[in-house]
Amino acid sequence: MSDKTSKPLRLGIAGLGTVGAGVVKIVRQKAALLEERSGSAIAISAVCARNRDTDRGVSLKDYAWEDDPVKLATRNDVDVFVELMGGSDGPAKAATEAALKAGKDVVTANKALLAHHGQELAELAEANDAVLRFEAAVAGGIPIIKSLTEGLAGNDIERVMGVMNGTCNYILTRMEDAGLTYDEAFAEADGLGYLEADPNLDVGGIDAGHKLSLLSAIAYGTQVNFDAVELEGIGCVTIEDIRQAADMGYRIKLLGVSRMTGRGLEQSMTPCLVPATSPLGQLVGGTNMVVVEGDQVGQVVLRGAGAGEGPTASAVMGDVMDIARGLRVTTFGKPASKLVPAQPANTNPPAPYYLRLSLSDKPGALAKVAAVLGEAGVSIHRMRQYDHENDMAPVLIVTHKTTRAALSDALSGMDQTGVVSGTPVALRIEEL
Amino acid sequence: MSDKTSKPLRLGIAGLGTVGAGVVKIVRQKAALLEERSGSAIAISAVCARNRDTDRGVSLKDYAWEDDPVKLATRNDVDVFVELMGGSDGPAKAATEAALKAGKDVVTANKALLAHHGQELAELAEANDAVLRFEAAVAGGIPIIKSLTEGLAGNDIERVMGVMNGTCNYILTRMEDAGLTYDEAFAEADGLGYLEADPNLDVGGIDAGHKLSLLSAIAYGTQVNFDAVELEGIGCVTIEDIRQAADMGYRIKLLGVSRMTGRGLEQSMTPCLVPATSPLGQLVGGTNMVVVEGDQVGQVVLRGAGAGEGPTASAVMGDVMDIARGLRVTTFGKPASKLVPAQPANTNPPAPYYLRLSLSDKPGALAKVAAVLGEAGVSIHRMRQYDHENDMAPVLIVTHKTTRAALSDALSGMDQTGVVSGTPVALRIEEL
Repeated sequence: MSDKTSKPLRLGIAGLGTVGAGVVKIVRQKAALLEERSGSAIAISAVCARNRDTDRGVSLKDYAWEDDPVKLATRNDVDVFVELMGGSDGPAKAATEAALKAGKDVVTANKALLAHHGQELAELAEANDAVLRFEAAVAGGIPIIKSLTEGLAGNDIERVMGVMNGTCNYILTRMEDAGLTYDEAFAEADGLGYLEADPNLDVGGIDAGHKLSLLSAIAYGTQVNFDAVELEGIGCVTIEDIRQAADMGYRIKLLGVSRMTGRGLEQSMTPCLVPATSPLGQLVGGTNMVVVEGDQVGQVVLRGAGAGEGPTASAVMGDVMDIARGLRVTTFGKPASKLVPAQPANTNPPAPYYLRLSLSDKPGALAKVAAVLGEAGVSIHRMRQYDHENDMAPVLIVTHKTTRAALSDALSGMDQTGVVSGTPVALRIEEL
Repeated sequence: MSDKTSKPLRLGIAGLGTVGAGVVKIVRQKAALLEERSGSAIAISAVCARNRDTDRGVSLKDYAWEDDPVKLATRNDVDVFVELMGGSDGPAKAATEAALKAGKDVVTANKALLAHHGQELAELAEANDAVLRFEAAVAGGIPIIKSLTEGLAGNDIERVMGVMNGTCNYILTRMEDAGLTYDEAFAEADGLGYLEADPNLDVGGIDAGHKLSLLSAIAYGTQVNFDAVELEGIGCVTIEDIRQAADMGYRIKLLGVSRMTGRGLEQSMTPCLVPATSPLGQLVGGTNMVVVEGDQVGQVVLRGAGAGEGPTASAVMGDVMDIARGLRVTTFGKPASKLVPAQPANTNPPAPYYLRLSLSDKPGALAKVAAVLGEAGVSIHRMRQYDHENDMAPVLIVTHKTTRAALSDALSGMDQTGVVSGTPVALRIEEL
């Protein structure tokens, strides 16, 4: 406000990959704008990365260099430690802890770190009167952390959903648009540099699961519980499933759903069918979308780039600007001591499911499958059987609402009929 | 943070319509949640409305009653004046000024007040070390003010667009979906209570124009300049236009566009054709959408309910919770003294236009129209002429990119051909 100090806010940046270099560029190129908006100059005191000699397209000569991120994080001339190294443990964790213990504010893009150690870091921040912000960790440039923590603070949040891994959505979109197999689309995404060093973080749903667990903590005031997220990757999805889904008016998305129920907290990050005409169904390519449902606000949808230099650096700078303006919010929107352990629901609410299975060319085969479903209490809404190829016929089934438990019973039963080949694909249908 | 005071934050609420009653309900029903999140209890000291005896579905007996909003705004037991009366002048302005002069923070849903007096009120707030927040004034429950002011503060904003009047979008959607005429859809919206007391505020684009002018101020650091918004209502849109647009892959929306150009600030709130497959084109019914484009973040889209008790009260409470948490941001994201006068661009950038005109059944009529367009330098991309009815034939023209000035020349020229009946409809096509 009017009595703002003119003392600059001094950053120490650890990690100078795409995002780190993007942050340095913004601080250098927009100095006047940032100062006018926040009331205080934003400066960089020191930086740190694995390799000092890499050309990052931006001059670092004005900044002190540190080889050790812990040293960087605790320098006297650093007010805010900006952690852009990544990794749930190791140097990122050590340096973040060191910064907080030294009373420095921390801005991080590290979803893995917070998904695994969010509670202890939030407690550490609070004990040291520091803030720990992580807008860039979830859905790139979309200001979802701020919206959920602050803008929607007058709501009881009822559900959070989202497509939060652009790489998975890119692969699924390319399978649909270009008729690529999963392997072909995966190879294309890899060639474009969209995949993490460990691709399973993307296609296994882990990265998106990390993000969902952070949103859950804010939404419901619970301690981060990533281990309780039901995870399933997109590797099981075939072009056949995508076509069948489209034919029925759905698209397949790696969808995160987090909901507080009477049975506990439900968190899943799995491939789902969503209506093709819904905002989530219409999301194509690498874009991210988060849907928040509050008891007052109804449904709010936020959409934007989920990754990349500019969008992620924008999110980091949003947090930095908050700190420069003196806006200090608790990590997950409540004091860490007030966050309660999240009791996992362990059971999913009833939902319709899409099933695809291969049926052998034997008399009565379809009847056997139908009988198994009936015995498990799963009723069939729609079924299609296609021509046999190599003695196998694809069968598509859409069930009425059923529980995951009943469906699992049916799936094990099918295994024993001797007429079903391979493992059936079962995807939840999420009506939005 | 950890050293939060436990002194309650005391509200004085002026205006107890749907939104005011909604705010009272949230404060009463969510007391524990709000206190846990913000670190301070939220209390209501006093309320004020035109009629004390109206049943508002919520008990007011715990609160002092004031007949005069100015008295309410300056009470010693009021920390935050919540202005939900509406109106650009009169009591809303008097009470807001009185509150700010007394150093009270103000939360308002009043777009008209800020569109007309935003600069002086921002200066007044600053001079008195008070904050003036207005999340509820733009796009209902969508946290767009916070996202633009804070979350995207590291960006140079390049364009802001949006559908920000749910009533207009409802009317246009019903015309398309149910084949209603404008008058029928208007009457339906009226019957549902969607229209303001002065319907021209909605269908004339004024309400949405107010909102756009506030977003422009934040986006570009300019003083609010509502008078420079190019305004055109939806009354000129016919079912025929909607069908023709649909046939070409577009939908008609009352679209706000704000852009800082080399020629100055461009602000328009006019019916436009947008691609039917774009997020804005897919927006149906009373929902609002705001699209922000920043140089770093790229395109961010926010969508949600633009009106109604819950969504608007949610936005009011977002501001109240910010104040309770000690988050204090300048009104338009910069100190008021740093906001520069917005130089209106006065000319629009070249764009394709959709034209509909009625051509009389005379030989060479179409040639005359084509000649007039050619002389004005407007080239035709597509043209369709339909069968004559009552000696008049509808002609639809989509132009190549042209300036609004060239188009105006052509339209006046047409008037003089003697073969065009009535006033041609000209709608900009906005490619997103």
